[in-house]
Amino acid sequence: MSTRTLVRGGLVVTAAEETHADVLVEDGRIAALAAHGSAVAAAWTADRTIDATGRYVIPGGVDAHTHMELPFGGTFASDDFESGTRAAAWGGTTTIVDFAVQSAGHTLREGLDAWHAKADGRCAVDYAFHMVLSDVDDSSLRETDLLVEEGVTSFGLLMAHPDAPHGDDGRVLTAMQRCARNGGLAVVHAENGPAADVLVEQALARGDTGPRHHGEAHHPLLEAEAAHRAVQLARVAGAPLYVAHVSAREALAALAAARDEGLPVFGETCPQYLFLSADDLAGPDFEGAKYVCDPPLRSREHQAALWRGLRTGDLQVVSTDHRPFCFRGQKELGRGDFSRIPEGLPGVENRMDLLHQAVVDGRIGRRRWIEIACAAPARMFGLYPRKGTIAPGADADIVVYDPSAKQTLSAGTHHMNVDYSPYEGRTVTGRVETVLSRGTPVIDRRTYTGRAGHGVYTPRATCQYLR
Amino acid sequence: MSTRTLVRGGLVVTAAEETHADVLVEDGRIAALAAHGSAVAAAWTADRTIDATGRYVIPGGVDAHTHMELPFGGTFASDDFESGTRAAAWGGTTTIVDFAVQSAGHTLREGLDAWHAKADGRCAVDYAFHMVLSDVDDSSLRETDLLVEEGVTSFGLLMAHPDAPHGDDGRVLTAMQRCARNGGLAVVHAENGPAADVLVEQALARGDTGPRHHGEAHHPLLEAEAAHRAVQLARVAGAPLYVAHVSAREALAALAAARDEGLPVFGETCPQYLFLSADDLAGPDFEGAKYVCDPPLRSREHQAALWRGLRTGDLQVVSTDHRPFCFRGQKELGRGDFSRIPEGLPGVENRMDLLHQAVVDGRIGRRRWIEIACAAPARMFGLYPRKGTIAPGADADIVVYDPSAKQTLSAGTHHMNVDYSPYEGRTVTGRVETVLSRGTPVIDRRTYTGRAGHGVYTPRATCQYLR
Amino acid sequence: MSTRTLVRGGLVVTAAEETHADVLVEDGRIAALAAHGSAVAAAWTADRTIDATGRYVIPGGVDAHTHMELPFGGTFASDDFESGTRAAAWGGTTTIVDFAVQSAGHTLREGLDAWHAKADGRCAVDYAFHMVLSDVDDSSLRETDLLVEEGVTSFGLLMAHPDAPHGDDGRVLTAMQRCARNGGLAVVHAENGPAADVLVEQALARGDTGPRHHGEAHHPLLEAEAAHRAVQLARVAGAPLYVAHVSAREALAALAAARDEGLPVFGETCPQYLFLSADDLAGPDFEGAKYVCDPPLRSREHQAALWRGLRTGDLQVVSTDHRPFCFRGQKELGRGDFSRIPEGLPGVENRMDLLHQAVVDGRIGRRRWIEIACAAPARMFGLYPRKGTIAPGADADIVVYDPSAKQTLSAGTHHMNVDYSPYEGRTVTGRVETVLSRGTPVIDRRTYTGRAGHGVYTPRATCQYLR
Amino acid sequence: MSTRTLVRGGLVVTAAEETHADVLVEDGRIAALAAHGSAVAAAWTADRTIDATGRYVIPGGVDAHTHMELPFGGTFASDDFESGTRAAAWGGTTTIVDFAVQSAGHTLREGLDAWHAKADGRCAVDYAFHMVLSDVDDSSLRETDLLVEEGVTSFGLLMAHPDAPHGDDGRVLTAMQRCARNGGLAVVHAENGPAADVLVEQALARGDTGPRHHGEAHHPLLEAEAAHRAVQLARVAGAPLYVAHVSAREALAALAAARDEGLPVFGETCPQYLFLSADDLAGPDFEGAKYVCDPPLRSREHQAALWRGLRTGDLQVVSTDHRPFCFRGQKELGRGDFSRIPEGLPGVENRMDLLHQAVVDGRIGRRRWIEIACAAPARMFGLYPRKGTIAPGADADIVVYDPSAKQTLSAGTHHMNVDYSPYEGRTVTGRVETVLSRGTPVIDRRTYTGRAGHGVYTPRATCQYLR
Repeated sequence: MSTRTLVRGGLVVTAAEETHADVLVEDGRIAALAAHGSAVAAAWTADRTIDATGRYVIPGGVDAHTHMELPFGGTFASDDFESGTRAAAWGGTTTIVDFAVQSAGHTLREGLDAWHAKADGRCAVDYAFHMVLSDVDDSSLRETDLLVEEGVTSFGLLMAHPDAPHGDDGRVLTAMQRCARNGGLAVVHAENGPAADVLVEQALARGDTGPRHHGEAHHPLLEAEAAHRAVQLARVAGAPLYVAHVSAREALAALAAARDEGLPVFGETCPQYLFLSADDLAGPDFEGAKYVCDPPLRSREHQAALWRGLRTGDLQVVSTDHRPFCFRGQKELGRGDFSRIPEGLPGVENRMDLLHQAVVDGRIGRRRWIEIACAAPARMFGLYPRKGTIAPGADADIVVYDPSAKQTLSAGTHHMNVDYSPYEGRTVTGRVETVLSRGTPVIDRRTYTGRAGHGVYTPRATCQYLR
Repeated sequence: MSTRTLVRGGLVVTAAEETHADVLVEDGRIAALAAHGSAVAAAWTADRTIDATGRYVIPGGVDAHTHMELPFGGTFASDDFESGTRAAAWGGTTTIVDFAVQSAGHTLREGLDAWHAKADGRCAVDYAFHMVLSDVDDSSLRETDLLVEEGVTSFGLLMAHPDAPHGDDGRVLTAMQRCARNGGLAVVHAENGPAADVLVEQALARGDTGPRHHGEAHHPLLEAEAAHRAVQLARVAGAPLYVAHVSAREALAALAAARDEGLPVFGETCPQYLFLSADDLAGPDFEGAKYVCDPPLRSREHQAALWRGLRTGDLQVVSTDHRPFCFRGQKELGRGDFSRIPEGLPGVENRMDLLHQAVVDGRIGRRRWIEIACAAPARMFGLYPRKGTIAPGADADIVVYDPSAKQTLSAGTHHMNVDYSPYEGRTVTGRVETVLSRGTPVIDRRTYTGRAGHGVYTPRATCQYLR
Repeated sequence: MSTRTLVRGGLVVTAAEETHADVLVEDGRIAALAAHGSAVAAAWTADRTIDATGRYVIPGGVDAHTHMELPFGGTFASDDFESGTRAAAWGGTTTIVDFAVQSAGHTLREGLDAWHAKADGRCAVDYAFHMVLSDVDDSSLRETDLLVEEGVTSFGLLMAHPDAPHGDDGRVLTAMQRCARNGGLAVVHAENGPAADVLVEQALARGDTGPRHHGEAHHPLLEAEAAHRAVQLARVAGAPLYVAHVSAREALAALAAARDEGLPVFGETCPQYLFLSADDLAGPDFEGAKYVCDPPLRSREHQAALWRGLRTGDLQVVSTDHRPFCFRGQKELGRGDFSRIPEGLPGVENRMDLLHQAVVDGRIGRRRWIEIACAAPARMFGLYPRKGTIAPGADADIVVYDPSAKQTLSAGTHHMNVDYSPYEGRTVTGRVETVLSRGTPVIDRRTYTGRAGHGVYTPRATCQYLR
Repeated sequence: MSTRTLVRGGLVVTAAEETHADVLVEDGRIAALAAHGSAVAAAWTADRTIDATGRYVIPGGVDAHTHMELPFGGTFASDDFESGTRAAAWGGTTTIVDFAVQSAGHTLREGLDAWHAKADGRCAVDYAFHMVLSDVDDSSLRETDLLVEEGVTSFGLLMAHPDAPHGDDGRVLTAMQRCARNGGLAVVHAENGPAADVLVEQALARGDTGPRHHGEAHHPLLEAEAAHRAVQLARVAGAPLYVAHVSAREALAALAAARDEGLPVFGETCPQYLFLSADDLAGPDFEGAKYVCDPPLRSREHQAALWRGLRTGDLQVVSTDHRPFCFRGQKELGRGDFSRIPEGLPGVENRMDLLHQAVVDGRIGRRRWIEIACAAPARMFGLYPRKGTIAPGADADIVVYDPSAKQTLSAGTHHMNVDYSPYEGRTVTGRVETVLSRGTPVIDRRTYTGRAGHGVYTPRATCQYLR
C-alpha cells in the first residue's frame, strides 16, 4: 500500500520557478504540486505531513563530482561511500556522481565493478558513476559503448600526462570521437601535466617546498592551455566537452570563447575556487597543506571571474570534487615536499550552504542557486527529470531548507570523515532542516534518520544539454 | 462558485520541465499539476475536461513587442487591438505587451491613456504596455517613476534621431540613469538614424528607389554601432538594457561581448529575421515592399548568427514587432520611393508556430522554444509567474498544441487584418488546437470562442532578470 | 653657390636603421650618407662641419597636432606661431601640423587664409595645416577636394556635438565618404559630447566643481564609444580613419579590434596621457586646473595600455595636442566651475625628450622613438620622405641629440609662452644640442640661432599609409 | 687594394625608404648612398658601374627557413647547399638560414658540424644556421648557451610528438626557459602531432589514401591548437616565440591575440600558403603529391587571412621552408599512402618574385615587400644591419630588380634541383637582373657569375625585435 507524504506551506524553489505550493509525495515520487491554499491542496491528506512554513522546499542537491575512498599516492580519500553519502545528506545533497576508475591494464568493467562493490549497500543517498579511462585503447573504447547503454554516460579523461597510457592527445581525440558517436560526455581534467611537472621540480630544487609553491607551480596558464586544447580537440572530434573544476579565469575565458561560437562546451567550478584563495595556501606552519588541491586555489581575482562565469552562464555546474584527506597522517605526508601532499579538499556537505550564502550575499539569485547545484548537474549527466527538480513524476528528493538559520562551519560539527574544515569558523546563513530521499526522511529536523543502503545506484541517460 | 477545468493526458512543456502531467485549473488559475496516472490525478474531477493525449500543454505565448493601430506616416498599422489580439489567440499567444507612445509635447500619461482607450474592452487576450518616450525631459522622466509603480516598467528609447526631442545620447543617458534608479528597463531601437538617412537620400538620388535598397541603406553596421553605443551608455548609467529586434550579426556580437563581461544586457529578435532574408526584399514587381521593416531583413548569414545567439543565450526573447500594413493602399504608398513604404510586418499569429518549426528542424530544443516565446519575455517584463509558465498559482493561460498537425501559412487563412502573408505558402508542422486565457477557452478545437473585452490590462513588475 | 654642411661621427638613428654614418647636406637637403671612416666619407669636405661624436643624429620631430593661438572660450591658446614654433625648435621638432579652423558660416578657404595669416612670416620651423570642418555641408565638402589638391589633406571632425552644424553622424559619414573619394584623412576627436555634457551638468549641480570632476565627467567609456562609432562609420564609408589623442584603454581596444580586421584605422596618443594621470588632476588648491585637457588625464592603468599600444603598433603616432593656457588669467577662469577651465596643455617643446626618456626606461626602442615622433606622423600626413627621416633627398631637418645629458623640465627654463609646466621638476635624460631646419642651424649648441619667418608652409601629399 | 662598385640611377627600396639614390660599394660593403643627380653623387667614380635606371635597387633577400639536403623518410631533399644556394641567387636571395639538425643521441655540436660540413665550400651566397633540438635534455640545453655565443641563436622545437625525445610540453617549456635566459629564440613547428596521427591513420584505414587526404588529416585546428599552446608555454617561460610556416587562419588568430596583449610572439608564413591552396592537392593522377607539405595547403579562405596578417603586422616574415623533393622517385613513394609522400615544396628561387607579384596585385606595398622578405627576417634572426637593408656599413648584398619584366615560372627554366614547379606556367611581373653578394656579382644581367664557396658562414646576433 502506498505512503503519502505532504510538504505543506513552503516556498518551492526550482531552477525555473518559485511557487507557494504544497507538494504531495506518493511512493517515493512527487505526485503533485498544488497552489498553497487552493481548494485542491486543502483537500489533500497524507500519512506524514511536513510543515514547511517559512522554509524553502528545494530539490535535493546533485553533486556531480566526488571521489569517495579514492586511492591516491598510497593512501585513500578519507570518506568512504558510507560516511561520504551520510555527510552529503546532512548537507542537502541527495545524489552524487562518483568517479569510478579503470586500473591500468584492466578493463573498464573491472573498474566499475570495483566501485559498485565499494558503494553497494553503503550509501545513504542515491549515486551514479562516471568512468575514468586509464587505458585509452580500442578495447576500452569498445567498452564505453556498453557503459553508455548501461547508464555510465560520461568519461573522465586526464589531459595531464601524455606519457601515461591514457594520455596523449591522440588518445584524447579518439575518446572524444567515440563520445561523439555513442553519446558519452568527455569530462576533462585540464592541465598541461608535463609543463607543470617541470615547474614542480624546479620549485623543489630551489627549496620552495611549502604548500604555497604547489599553487605557483600549477600555473593558471597551464590550466587555460589545456582547456583550450580540449576545446579544439572536441571541435575536431565533433564532440561535446565538459571541463571539470575550472579554477583559472583564463581557462574560463577559453570556455566562454567556445560558447560564444555556439560550441557544446560546458564548465564546472567548485566551492573551494569560489570561497577560498591562494592566501589560504600561504598559511603558517604547514596549515596551507589543508588547502592543497588540483587545480590549486588561485589568487582572488580569479574568484571574481568565476562568479561572473556563473552569472553569464559560461559555467553551468558547481560540484565539489570532494576528495578529503585528513591533516594528520595524510596531508602531513607532504611536509618538506609539497608534491607529496595528497591533493584534495572535503566539501560534499558544505556545497549547498556555501552557495546559499552567495544568494544571501547577492552574488546569484535563488533560482540560479538551485540551477547550478541541482538542475544543471542533473541535466548535464542525464539524471533529469528524476533528479534536480520538484515536478510531478520526479523522485521525491526534497530538502526543507531554513533560509534564515545561521550556522558555523567546523570540523567539530561536520559529518565528513576528515579532521579539519577548510571553512573552519565561517558563519553562513541557511541550513538544511529535513531531507527526503525518494520520499524517505534521511534527515528529519536535524536528526539523521537514514541508513547505509537506502541509497541506490541510479543509471543515467546521456547529457540532456545536447537535445 | 468556482469552475474547475482539467487538462488531462498531455505533455506539459515549460521552459524548464517536460512532464506527463494533468493540469487542474480553478478560478482561472492553475491550481495543481499531478503526474498523469497517479492516484491523486486519477481522483480529480472537473466541470470541463480537455483531453490532451498526444498533445503538448504549453503556457500561452507572450509577445513582448506589438504595435496595434500604430500611427505611422499618415496611416495606421492595420490591426487594431480587437483584430490583433484575436489573431494572437489563434496563434497561441495569450499576452501582448504593446508600445504606448507619448505624443511630442504631451505627457506620458496622455499617451498611456490614449492607448488604454484603444485597448479597453477590445482585447481577446490579456495585454500590458511599454511606454515610448518621445520627449526625454525632466517632466517625462519624473512621470516614469509613477508609471513604474503602476506597472508600466519599460521604456522605449529611439536612438535613431538625435535631433528629435527624444533623441540625443545625452537624453538617452539621462533616461537610462532614471531607469537605474526606478527599476525601469530601457528598450532601445538601435540604429544610427542620421547615418542611415544619408544612405537613404543617396540611394534615392541615385535612382535606387525599390524595396531592396531600403535594406541596403539601413546598413547592418549602423545597427551594430547603435547597439554598441547603447551598451556603453547603459554601462555609464549603471542601467540594464534591452535591445529590441536585433537583426544584424554585428549587433549581436556587441551584445555577446557585453554579456561576456557580465553586464545586464538583453536582446530580442523576431521571426522575420530568423525566417526571411534580403532575398525576399528583392522580389519582382514591388513584391519586396511586403518585406520592408525596420531594421530591414538581412542577408542569410545573419540568420545563422541569430539562431546561434538563441542557442548560446545571447538573445533571450523572440517577439514579433507586429506592425502590419496592407500591401494595397499602404505598402503601395512607397512605389518609386522606398522611404515611403510603411515599415513593418505582421506576425503576432505566426510566432509560436514558426518557432515550433525550428524545434522540428532541430535548431532549438522544445523547452527553449517555450523559454524564448513565453517564459523569458514574461520574466523580462515582470509578468512572471502569472504569465509564461504552467505552475501552481499561475494564470491558466494554456495552449493545447498539436505537434504533428501540418498547416500552410497564408493570407487566405490567417486572422490578422492584413492582405498578405510574408510566409505565404510555407508549410509548417505544429498547430494550436485549444487556448485557455485565465481558464476560459478562447480557441476551442480550432474554433474561436473568445470575445472582445475578455482580455484585461495586466500591470507588470520590474524586470525579473535583475534579481 | 651651394653650401655644404657635414654632420660627422654620430649615430644616425631613423625609424628603420641605426648607422654610424656621416651625413652630407647640400642646399638644405640631405645629399648623402656614408659609413663613418669609409674612404668616401673621409674625403668629404664642407663649409660647416658639426661634430656629432657621441651623439645621435636624428630626423627633426614632426608634431602632427598643434593649436597655436587657438581661440577657446573667449581666450586664446597662449602660444602664437612665433613662440610656439621657437619652442618646437628648442625641443627638436622641425615641423608642426596645426589645425586651421573653419568659422561657422564661413568657407574653409576663409578659415585656412586666417591661419595662413597667423603663421606667415612668424615661424621658426616648417608648418602645414589640417582643416577642421565646422559646417559639414555640400559647399564645405566641395571645398575639401580643392584643399586636398593644394596640400591640406586631412580634416578634423568633431563627433562631440550632434546639434552643432558640424556634428551629427550623418554629416560625419558624409565627410568620410568624401575623404574616401578625394584621398583626405578624417581626423576624429572621439567623445560622445551630449552624454558627457549630462555628466558635467550633474557634477556641477552636485557641487563637484573642481578640476578632478572634469576628468570623471568625461568618462573613458564615452571616448571608447565614440571611437568605436567612428570606426563603424568609416567602414560604411570605405574611408580610412585617424583617431586623435587616444587616452582611454577601451578606446584603444576599439582601434586594435579594427586593425586586427585589417581596417585602415590609425591612432595617436600624446605625452600627457603617457606621463601624467588623473592623480595630477586631484592636486590641492586648484593646481589640478593645470592638467585639464580634453580628453582628460585618465587613471594610471590607462597609461600601461597606451604604452602597450605603442609597442604593438595599434597606436602609430605621438603628437602633443599643444594647446597651452596660462594658469594665471586663463586656467583660473574655471575656479568654482571646472567646465570653464580652458582645456589644453603645453607640450610642443617636451615631446621628443619625454619619449626619449621612455627609451631610457626601456619602454620603447630607439628606432621606435623616431618612428612614433618623426617618421610615422610624416607618413601619416603626407610629408614623407621630405620630413621624418634622414635619407638622400630628404629635407635636412636634423637634430644632434645628446642621449646622456640630463635636464630638469620647468616653466623657469622652457621656451613655451605659458607660466607653468605640467612636468615641473621632472628630470629626464637626453637633450637637444643642435637643430638644422633645411640645413640652417636654428639651435646651435643650445643657442637659438633661428628667426621668425625661416619656417615655410609645407603642402602635404595624402596619407602614405594607404599605399 | 679596394674595389669600388657604383649602382647608379635606380630606385633604392628598403623596408623604410624609397629613394632615387646612387649606391657606392667599397670592399664588399655599402659605403655611401647619395641623392641621384646631387653634386656629391655626380663626382663619384668606380671600378664597376651598374646602370640601374628604371630598376629597383633592393637588399638581397633573406630566406630564414630552408632545409638543404634534409634527410627525410629514407630520402633527402633534392637540393644540396650548392644547387640550393645557386637557385637562391637566381631568385635574388643572398642569405639563407638553414636548419641544422641534432641527431637523436648525439650532441648539438655533432649535428652542427655535420651541417657545416655539408655547406662549407659549397654555397653561392651567405648562410647561417638554426639548430633543431632533437634531445631536449640538460646536456643539450647547456650546449645551447654556447651556440648562442657562437652565432646560432635560434632553436627549432618540434611540438608535434610528445613521445619523441624532443617532445613533451615539459621539454618545450624547459627549452623556452633556457631561451629566456640565453637570448635564443624558440622556433616552433606548431601541430598537435598525436592528434594528427590519429586522423592520418583513420583516413588510411578508410581507404582515403590520396594526397588531398593528407591535407584533411592535418586539420587546421590542430595547428591552431599547437600555436596557442606554444604561446602559453612561452608566457609561462617568459620567452619570445617564433611560429614557423603559419598556414591556418585560426593559428594566425592565436598569434594576433597574443600580440594584442603585447607579447613577443612572431609569425612566419610561406609563399605556398599565400599562392597555393587545397585545390592544388586535389589534382588528378597523383599530381596533388607535388603539393604535399607540412602544414598542408589550406582552403582559399585561409589565404585571405594570411594576406591580412601580413598587412596588419601579425605576421612578420615570409620564408620558404624550402624542402624540395622530385616527383619521380621521391613524391611517388607515397602512391597509395599519402603518409609516405615526402613532405615539402621547393621555393627558394621563387619567393622574391612571388611577393613582388603581390605588390603588383596591390596586396602589399613595395616597402612591405622588402620588409617581409629581407629586413624582418634579418632582424628576427640577428643578421641586421649587415643583411636585409641598403645602408652605409651593410654588406653589399644588392639586387637590381626589373619591376616590369614578365617571366613564366616553370621547372623547365628554374635552377632548383627538382623536376617540377608548384607554380608551373604561372606568369609573374618582375625579375631579378643582377645580384651582388658582398659586392661580388653572382648574377650579372641574368648570367650566373658566382661560384660554389663564395658564400660564407655568417654567425648571428640574437633576435633584434627584442631590444
